[in-house]
Order: sequence, then C-alpha cells, then structure tokens
Amino acid sequence: MDIFSRIEKPSLLLDVERARANIRQMARKAAAQNVSLRPHFKTHQSAVIGEWFAAEGVKAITVSSVDMARYFISYGWKDVTIAFPVNIRQITVMESLARQAKLGLVVESVAGARALGDKIRSDVSIWLKVDVGSGRTGLLHDNSAAFMAVITEVSRHSQLHLRGLLAHAGHTYRSADAPQVITRYMESVTRLEGLRTALQAMNSPELEISVGDTPGCTLSPNLGRVAEIRPGNFVFYDVQQLGVGACTPDQIAVALACPIVALHPQREIVVIYGGAIHLSKDTADWYGQRIYGLVALPNVNRQVGQPCWGDPLAEAYVASLSQEHGLVHIPRKQMEQLQIGDLLCVLPVHSCLTAQAMGRYLTLDGERILMMPLMS
Amino acid sequence: MDIFSRIEKPSLLLDVERARANIRQMARKAAAQNVSLRPHFKTHQSAVIGEWFAAEGVKAITVSSVDMARYFISYGWKDVTIAFPVNIRQITVMESLARQAKLGLVVESVAGARALGDKIRSDVSIWLKVDVGSGRTGLLHDNSAAFMAVITEVSRHSQLHLRGLLAHAGHTYRSADAPQVITRYMESVTRLEGLRTALQAMNSPELEISVGDTPGCTLSPNLGRVAEIRPGNFVFYDVQQLGVGACTPDQIAVALACPIVALHPQREIVVIYGGAIHLSKDTADWYGQRIYGLVALPNVNRQVGQPCWGDPLAEAYVASLSQEHGLVHIPRKQMEQLQIGDLLCVLPVHSCLTAQAMGRYLTLDGERILMMPLMS
Repeated sequence: MDIFSRIEKPSLLLDVERARANIRQMARKAAAQNVSLRPHFKTHQSAVIGEWFAAEGVKAITVSSVDMARYFISYGWKDVTIAFPVNIRQITVMESLARQAKLGLVVESVAGARALGDKIRSDVSIWLKVDVGSGRTGLLHDNSAAFMAVITEVSRHSQLHLRGLLAHAGHTYRSADAPQVITRYMESVTRLEGLRTALQAMNSPELEISVGDTPGCTLSPNLGRVAEIRPGNFVFYDVQQLGVGACTPDQIAVALACPIVALHPQREIVVIYGGAIHLSKDTADWYGQRIYGLVALPNVNRQVGQPCWGDPLAEAYVASLSQEHGLVHIPRKQMEQLQIGDLLCVLPVHSCLTAQAMGRYLTLDGERILMMPLMS
Repeated sequence: MDIFSRIEKPSLLLDVERARANIRQMARKAAAQNVSLRPHFKTHQSAVIGEWFAAEGVKAITVSSVDMARYFISYGWKDVTIAFPVNIRQITVMESLARQAKLGLVVESVAGARALGDKIRSDVSIWLKVDVGSGRTGLLHDNSAAFMAVITEVSRHSQLHLRGLLAHAGHTYRSADAPQVITRYMESVTRLEGLRTALQAMNSPELEISVGDTPGCTLSPNLGRVAEIRPGNFVFYDVQQLGVGACTPDQIAVALACPIVALHPQREIVVIYGGAIHLSKDTADWYGQRIYGLVALPNVNRQVGQPCWGDPLAEAYVASLSQEHGLVHIPRKQMEQLQIGDLLCVLPVHSCLTAQAMGRYLTLDGERILMMPLMS
C-alpha cells in the first residue's frame, strides 16, 4: 500500500531526493567559489536532515534561536551561529552552549554588546548585524561610526571575539524577478565591503563577511568576496522562491497532503482538511490573487515506481485558510476527477513556516522524520 | 521573584481570572435564554481549561478535528461534536471515539453522507452544514432540495442519527461594528429557521439548530430560537474581537510576553523576540495599518499585588513578523523608557492561532498549562 492510501490527516510530505539534490547543489556552488556554507537550519529544524548537510561536508550551521542551538548542539554540531539579535534573558543557556560548541552571537548596539559582555563568561564569537537594505534590524550599513562604537565596546570584553559583519538581504524575497534578486544580492555584498573598508580605515580588527538569503545565494552566479553564506530555505524551496525565480517546481521538496472534505463545483471550490495551523498564513501573489499555496495531485514517478506529487495544476491555488479548513480554487473542468476523500498536495508559500507548524515530515517512502520538539 | 523576571523567551501569558469571567458570562447568558452552550474548544485546546467550563455546567463541547475529539474524550468529555466536514480517511478513529462518547459529525453532501454511512458502524449524531452567508463551506441555506437529498441519504443508514442544522456565521468577524454583527447573527438564525420550515414542509424529521460565532453570541442580546451555541474564541478574546466591539481590552485573557532584542528610536521600531511562529500571521486593520498585534507593558495589579499587563499603548502595534522576529512600532516618546532585555506584552490578533502556535500557557501565578500534544 503506498503512502497516499495510508494518509489520514494533513501530512507534510518530503521528497528526500529533491532535498538532498538541493543541498548538494548549494554545497558545490559554495565550494567552487571558496566560500563556506553555513546553512540556516531554521527551515528544516531536524537532526536527521542535518545529517544530509554533514554528508556534503557542512561543519558549521546557523540557527535562529537559543533553543535551536541547544537542539543541534545536543546532536553533535560544534560550530553554531545564532543569527538573531542576542536575547540577554537567555544568558544562562548560552553560557552552557558556549562551553560545548563554538557559539556565534549577533549584536547590533553598544547597549547590547555591553549587556552581553557584562554577563557572559565563556568565549563567544561576535558578529555585528548590518542592515543592508532589508529594514528589519541591524545598524545601517553606511553608519560606520555606530559600528565603530560597538566594536570598541566589544573589545572591552576579552571573552567576546569579534568575527565580522553579518547581514540578511531579506529584501531579495520581495524582488520582482531573478535579475532584481541578483542586483540586490550584489548590492548588499558591495555595501558590506564598503563598510568593512570604512571600518578598517578607522583601525578596526579584521572582519569577515557573512551573508545569506536563499534567492541571492541561489541566483547570483557570483557569491562575492564573502567568507560564508547562510541560506536556509533552499533545502525545500517553496512558492515564494518559485515566484522570484529561485527554483523550478520540481525542486520544491515538501508538499502538504490534505484530504478533500467537500466539493463545491458551482463555486469552483474544493474544501480540504488543511488550514492555517498546518500551512501558516504566509501569502504570495499568483494568478492575480493573494494565495496560500499552489496545488498538485498525488502521482507515481514512473521511472522509479515511487509515489510523488505532480506539477502544480494550472489556475489552481489555495484561496483562503481558516484554522483547519483550506479553500482551494480549482477550475471546474479539473474538479470532475476529484472526490471526497481524495488527497490534494499543497506546495506551501513559505516552507519554513509550514515545516514549523507541522512539526514532522513523512517521506515518500513512508518514513517519519521528527523535528525539534517544544523545549522548556 | 515575579513571573516577568523569570521569562526567558516568548511566553503566552494567561490571565486566569479574565478567562474564567469570560466563560461565566457566556454560560450565564446561554442559561438565561434556555440555550445550551457547547463551547468550541479549538481556541484553548487544553484539558485544564476545559475543567473551567465544566465548573460552569458545560457538559457538551465542540472541536475542530478528530485528534481534538480524541484528546478531550480521553479527559472524560462524553458529548463531542466535530464541527468540520467529516474526513472519511479518519473513519477508524471516529469509530473508536463513537464507542466512548456521543459523537456528532457534520455532513454537507449526498456523497459525504453515503461514504460515512457505508463505512461507520457505531451510532453517531449527524448535523447538516449550512452556509448562512459566510461562503466557506456547507450547502446554501436557500437550497432546501439539496438538504432534502442529504437527509434522504442519511435516513438510509440506521446508525446515522440526524440532529439538525449547523452553521457558523463566520462573516460576523468581518463586520464593521457591533450593530452589523448583530444583524448578521440574527439574519443567520432567521435563515436557519426558514430552512427548517421549508424542510418540515417536505416532511423532514425534527431538526435542531446549532450556531456559534463569538462576535454574534457575545453581542446579540437575543440568541434566537436555537438549541445550542458553539462560540470558542470568547474564552480569551483578542484584537480581532476588540475590533468588532465584541470585547473590551480588559477582557482579553492572553498576551505574548516577548523580550526586546533591539531598539531603533529613529525608525520608532522595537525588535522583539516573538515572530510568526509564536503569534501566527493573522492581521487586523488598526491605526490605518495592517497589524499583527497590539502592545502593552508588564504591570502589577495594585488591588491584588499580582503581575499583569497594562492597557494597550496608544499608537503602538506589531508592524511586521518574520519567523522569530517581530517589529513593533512604538512612538519615540514611549521608547525612551524601554531597554534591551525588557518585555513587551503583545495582544494577539487571533488568540486561537497564537495559542495553537505556542502549545502552552503561563499563568500570571507562574503555573504552566499544557495544550493538546501533536498526535500521531
């Protein structure tokens, strides 16, 4: 019996071959350009999937929380950057992690550096967070005086070891197309290089550059003069990445299998068991609509006889979500082949949030892969 | 040491007094009008909180998934309606639940009724799902012939016991104000009564009416001639309910306590550790913006000397969310009193999704309350 007949409720399918190919491709690109790949593990949050990166030579990783650092360090990872402005309320845990692994932390203000330096006793690596244009957080790249003030504060604490400048060009996600992604990626690298030059002129220590967003790292042929890249989403890709041209449909490695619970042919709507608590509420613009996912049908890979999902159906999309319901628009013609109890496979808009919401994967072989549990 | 000094990471605070007062108020309103309260437990998903309803005389509940039915039945609930179009892939579990409790299921098509009737062997109650104007799912209220066809199919299966008509007037959530909520609520009750009359004229069996949306059940002085109401959100309320006038700020019973990790006074932005994976990505229109939450400061209730959160700060709101970051707009004047490491309390836009994302509560007394775990 194939996995599709065993699925009872929304299940996050994982195409292992695709995910491993995505990892391999990025690892080879980084290696060819002499850039370290420090992948962001917030996308998959799984010790098992982490091993697939290790198999491609990855030794250092990025995470987005202290809990996630704890989880991966407990699975043997020895070089972990928490790419999030340091949360000084978690100093005790960070202290213990810094004794078990090489721990990288991010600061972006004199007050933050001082609070950290006054409290932590173990050696940690320090990255300065740079806003290269995404407008989320960090000091603005052209404010070298502000960076110098933070560097001076960091240098007052002997256990804080300055590594360099860290940025996330998150505005590449909002790009119109691949050329704009590349322009924004290269612009962010250029801004970081400019900042480094300005700081060196002010007698800063040596500074490495760390960047990392999946669209830029995937699409830019040239990664630039950076020490490391930290993309994460590329392990699975998703509809957002498809939208900016960072992947093809057959590189998307996860899909939420959802039972059909109602059909409304007059409205061209299929109701699925699969809602906001499974997919998350991230949206993309597609077919002139705000959508919550594209839709494919269960299929069989003829070459290997394995279950898989097909290409996204034309003009089909998740039109709205409530807590557990999804409303899927499907052209009437294609609805004729569907019945209550069938499955639809939803390609998520944002695979990181969908994986987080689901908490585990089901491979096409029927194997369950667990993610990081809720940690107290 | 109060709970605020112990919080290390995003924590969903629960004001037990407020939640219990919200429950008491709804229970009394229903009792005064001789209407059964069958509260929707998808909002809180907690056996402990379920007991607070039992203490107010609640004996029958609503859930949104088979897993949730399983969880609450395992805690002794004996009368459970799964208010979701029946998912026939979960027939085996439903069968076992129907032997332990009075199980209510929802059907909305001949095909659905037939699939259920052909497969399930235990006795179950059947509700027919009516679309009273929300446009999510269900048969349209004015299509009595379609309902009669489903009733005929249900009557062919002796283990399916028809109870009545069930609707969720979800469009009350999108109302402009309280009068519009009341109009939509009463209109939905009228439509259900009209449908019942039409079906009786076609010789249908006796049909009860079940409705339930928090705005309507809270605001409508008259609940109408219904057998039961199924609101859920009212246990916590949230910014969405505040927006339609269904609650006051001091009835909101949950808030996400989030550490401040960066301050950007020039941009009037505070960065918190608290993102889409904690709050969910539901939005409300507020201050002319699309917001992800309102913001209050930790406080102490002077009367009882207990920690609490204050009133929402004027002109302060969560402006954007990424996976773990929240960007909070706070007027510069009020930012002066804030420091890295302080906490902000975010009143969620949609408390059901925030609770689901967090998986547990922290009461103002410092007690942890667990929710339903991920079920295999």
